[in-house]
Amino acid sequence: MIDFQTHPDQYRHWKLKIDAPVAYLTMDVDPEATLRPGYELKMNSYDLGVDIELYDAIQRLRFEHPEVRSVVLDSGKERIFCAGANIRMLGASTHAHKVNFCKFTNETRNGIEDASENSRQRYLCAVNGTAAGGGYELALATDHIMLIDDDSAAVSLPEVPLLAVLPGTGGLTRLVDKRKVRRDLADVFCAVEEGIKGQRAVDWRLVDEIAPASKFAEAVRARAEALAATSDRPADAAGVPFTPLQRDIGDDGVDYPNLTVAIDRTGRVATLTLKAPTAAPPADLAGIAAAGVDYWPLALARELDDAILHLRSNEGEIGTWVFKAVGDGDAVAAYDAQLQAHADHWLVREIVLYWKRTLKRVDVTSRTTFTLVEPGSCFVGLLAELLFASDRSYMLDGQVEGDSTPAATVRLGEMNFGPLPMGNGLTRLATRFLGEPESVDRAHALVGQALDGGAALAAGLVTFAPDDIDWEDEVRMALEERASFSPDALTGLEANLRFAGPETVETKIFGRLSAWQNWIFQRPNAVSEQGALKLYGSGARPNYNLERV
Amino acid sequence: MIDFQTHPDQYRHWKLKIDAPVAYLTMDVDPEATLRPGYELKMNSYDLGVDIELYDAIQRLRFEHPEVRSVVLDSGKERIFCAGANIRMLGASTHAHKVNFCKFTNETRNGIEDASENSRQRYLCAVNGTAAGGGYELALATDHIMLIDDDSAAVSLPEVPLLAVLPGTGGLTRLVDKRKVRRDLADVFCAVEEGIKGQRAVDWRLVDEIAPASKFAEAVRARAEALAATSDRPADAAGVPFTPLQRDIGDDGVDYPNLTVAIDRTGRVATLTLKAPTAAPPADLAGIAAAGVDYWPLALARELDDAILHLRSNEGEIGTWVFKAVGDGDAVAAYDAQLQAHADHWLVREIVLYWKRTLKRVDVTSRTTFTLVEPGSCFVGLLAELLFASDRSYMLDGQVEGDSTPAATVRLGEMNFGPLPMGNGLTRLATRFLGEPESVDRAHALVGQALDGGAALAAGLVTFAPDDIDWEDEVRMALEERASFSPDALTGLEANLRFAGPETVETKIFGRLSAWQNWIFQRPNAVSEQGALKLYGSGARPNYNLERV
Repeated sequence: MIDFQTHPDQYRHWKLKIDAPVAYLTMDVDPEATLRPGYELKMNSYDLGVDIELYDAIQRLRFEHPEVRSVVLDSGKERIFCAGANIRMLGASTHAHKVNFCKFTNETRNGIEDASENSRQRYLCAVNGTAAGGGYELALATDHIMLIDDDSAAVSLPEVPLLAVLPGTGGLTRLVDKRKVRRDLADVFCAVEEGIKGQRAVDWRLVDEIAPASKFAEAVRARAEALAATSDRPADAAGVPFTPLQRDIGDDGVDYPNLTVAIDRTGRVATLTLKAPTAAPPADLAGIAAAGVDYWPLALARELDDAILHLRSNEGEIGTWVFKAVGDGDAVAAYDAQLQAHADHWLVREIVLYWKRTLKRVDVTSRTTFTLVEPGSCFVGLLAELLFASDRSYMLDGQVEGDSTPAATVRLGEMNFGPLPMGNGLTRLATRFLGEPESVDRAHALVGQALDGGAALAAGLVTFAPDDIDWEDEVRMALEERASFSPDALTGLEANLRFAGPETVETKIFGRLSAWQNWIFQRPNAVSEQGALKLYGSGARPNYNLERV
Repeated sequence: MIDFQTHPDQYRHWKLKIDAPVAYLTMDVDPEATLRPGYELKMNSYDLGVDIELYDAIQRLRFEHPEVRSVVLDSGKERIFCAGANIRMLGASTHAHKVNFCKFTNETRNGIEDASENSRQRYLCAVNGTAAGGGYELALATDHIMLIDDDSAAVSLPEVPLLAVLPGTGGLTRLVDKRKVRRDLADVFCAVEEGIKGQRAVDWRLVDEIAPASKFAEAVRARAEALAATSDRPADAAGVPFTPLQRDIGDDGVDYPNLTVAIDRTGRVATLTLKAPTAAPPADLAGIAAAGVDYWPLALARELDDAILHLRSNEGEIGTWVFKAVGDGDAVAAYDAQLQAHADHWLVREIVLYWKRTLKRVDVTSRTTFTLVEPGSCFVGLLAELLFASDRSYMLDGQVEGDSTPAATVRLGEMNFGPLPMGNGLTRLATRFLGEPESVDRAHALVGQALDGGAALAAGLVTFAPDDIDWEDEVRMALEERASFSPDALTGLEANLRFAGPETVETKIFGRLSAWQNWIFQRPNAVSEQGALKLYGSGARPNYNLERV
């Protein structure tokens, strides 16, 4: 089992030093501490285990360190920043592991950009030597790249010449779309194994700044302080320690305090049931801070995030995720209102951003997602967003015979109209109603109203609203039908239907770039016994099929 | 060899009837007339041969029939519109053929949309029965879809449930991005093998209009006339007959009057040399019309188009295309000026649109493209656009020792600043200079000036400008290096670097959708002996690997 939970005390690969307002996040990979046997993490190369620590560190910087306003990503190795994803690890991995690894690392790098832009914790990369492949892609995720100006420090994307694959962590997209490198220069850059250094790296827009080694640390500090000066994070607030998650992983599911995951292995369905808070929200901001990781919206975000990562990595054959929500909708609404009321407070802002990123994980997960709205459910505001993040939603219209539980309702909140945009930059409702924008306004007018099945269906908020008589059959048949389809075809279908509207760096990375990379990851030229990824380091030359496809 | 040249007299699958201002383009596939042996084209299913005729018909409608203002796409079969791409053909095809087939059919459908929007020859689809998969995707490419309202006529995209692949001709993108079908309804639609019919098809935005069978022909005619009324095409102009191309296909190349293609099989390079006109342009519009297909810009567009399609389909191992242009730059400039001066004339408009589509073919071709600018070349205006369509361009700075040919220059024209946008909606120069928009303005100020190597390099118009001493080695090494890389990795690299900036329906189809489809086309769940595409029609159920990737 791959576990995404860790703690700085357990880090093997990163060092975190706080020197407020700047933090130094230093990559210093322990070559022996690999996630799986069979390879060594030389030259600051990484595997998923290294990236799990990175993700943990970024999350803690956001929540535990309000006083940190800029983060320097640097290296603990002499003249080496980072050699990228470990190639022997990639060569030995299954297709599914490679793809999932790339997805998680992409999300982590998008998270760096989100921290810079929205948490106002601005990332700077101090490239002290070679930054190759994934190493340069890590740098690309920061706001500002500084490179030592000497004979050896260079940035490179050598995947195509060396490995017959693409840079897998957004490199190509960030070159031409984020940094707006000219396409012909990008083409040349991606063919130069040894990379580009010095002034040419600046001229080609590959890095932002160079400085001689003797003045590098000083220049980095000055730049980090300048970036910090643009931040609005509080200097004197107390952070929220990320204590270990309470979690009980069993054979057929996972239990968290606010979430249960129940796996039906025969039907290949995981049901994720989110639980409403059982008490009213704290009275004020001090109460929120005091609750810390137990504050319901934060606690649930952490649990949902962990459950998503767990299911993705450890339950590959569970092809459909069903979301349910149980409990008191009024309690959800009260928390929702509190998040809105204090949206500008640094901690509340972090919590909402965490939900935004977690819902984006749902968007890019290669699993079918259905939401079921039943009596006793509480799809209100924040939780109602799952209706729009899902491939389909089914709402039971009316009561169930012989059961006094009132009919289900859904209730929109302001949370559904702005704070939780998709990767395409639009809200899920705006994306959903691309063809009828007036429906977004109509839905907005319904904020706070308890909508029964008929009303939710009429407003276009759910896909189907069968009554008690049809409910069970309809849901069962939909789940069985889904399980009968080719998992690959579903992955492609969902990746194409979920992102109508504008494309951004982020959606291009998950749509265009990842799809091509996944294709290449299947091609013999990369992954056969004669392929470049398998032969790398052996001295043997790959034997390519020369046909262009 | 697959030949893309045909003529209505040779059509086996389509009937073209002109009833101005409306044309009827009727699909009536001859099941026996297949491009290759081994399958029958039942139920108006199609193979590349059917689509080659379709492409020919669309081109002729544009050029030969200025009087046609709207086109009805319909079917000659009872209760069947079109069953889509032939599945047995797909099952028996190589990966490369499937991918190339999808690319060409996609370009043809994009061409239908271009005709509707820009040639003002508006397409309407009259769906008289089942329109399944590629059949419905053909309808989706038109401006207006009409469906017979009866018990059997339906539109469907059954690829995922039946074949474990995606709709390969833009269907998913056009559903959610062009027609803006709600994503959850699109998800349901793609799971319903038998499709959606009647009013529900309208409600879900899948079609625009339904009409009972008894009134269908009449309703279609009325709608076609209404569409025709929005067109500005001339009623009384003479069309330009597309006489057969002059072409000499040899073992190592193709000769056309205005273009030679020379293939170096050892180096795996095709050199496409475009020839400048040898005479001044006709004096006026009457002269252009009289020249017809021999009018230089039109003649060259036809030749280049044919050469691209030929190389793509028949020369898969020739991985790099090198563009050269020879002849009198002033003559090119004179034609360029004429195209600009008469941009509003229907025929000139068509010629420029043809260039636009042909250059877009270069953009989405899975071959490396280099442009070489040498003494004696004529990269001016229209032809200079190849500099920006290429992955790289090399310009020889100065003269060659012992050769009195003047040093090469490039000359921009207004053609480079608007009439020839890429699929992303931007000009190639705007895409090139995304990071420095001021460079577009700077380049605009250079229109008409002969720029030598240094000036072109300084303006960012070429990638490198070596002098005579370095030229040969530098170009040779670049070509050899390219030939040493994995063809698949290059395809992915180029597909990601060429399209910075906004994404459109068109770029999403070639980027996101095609990449996923190509991935799925490699996956055992679709194409192994146990895969759905192979087993379709056999009665056996596919055996899926259940892991979600």
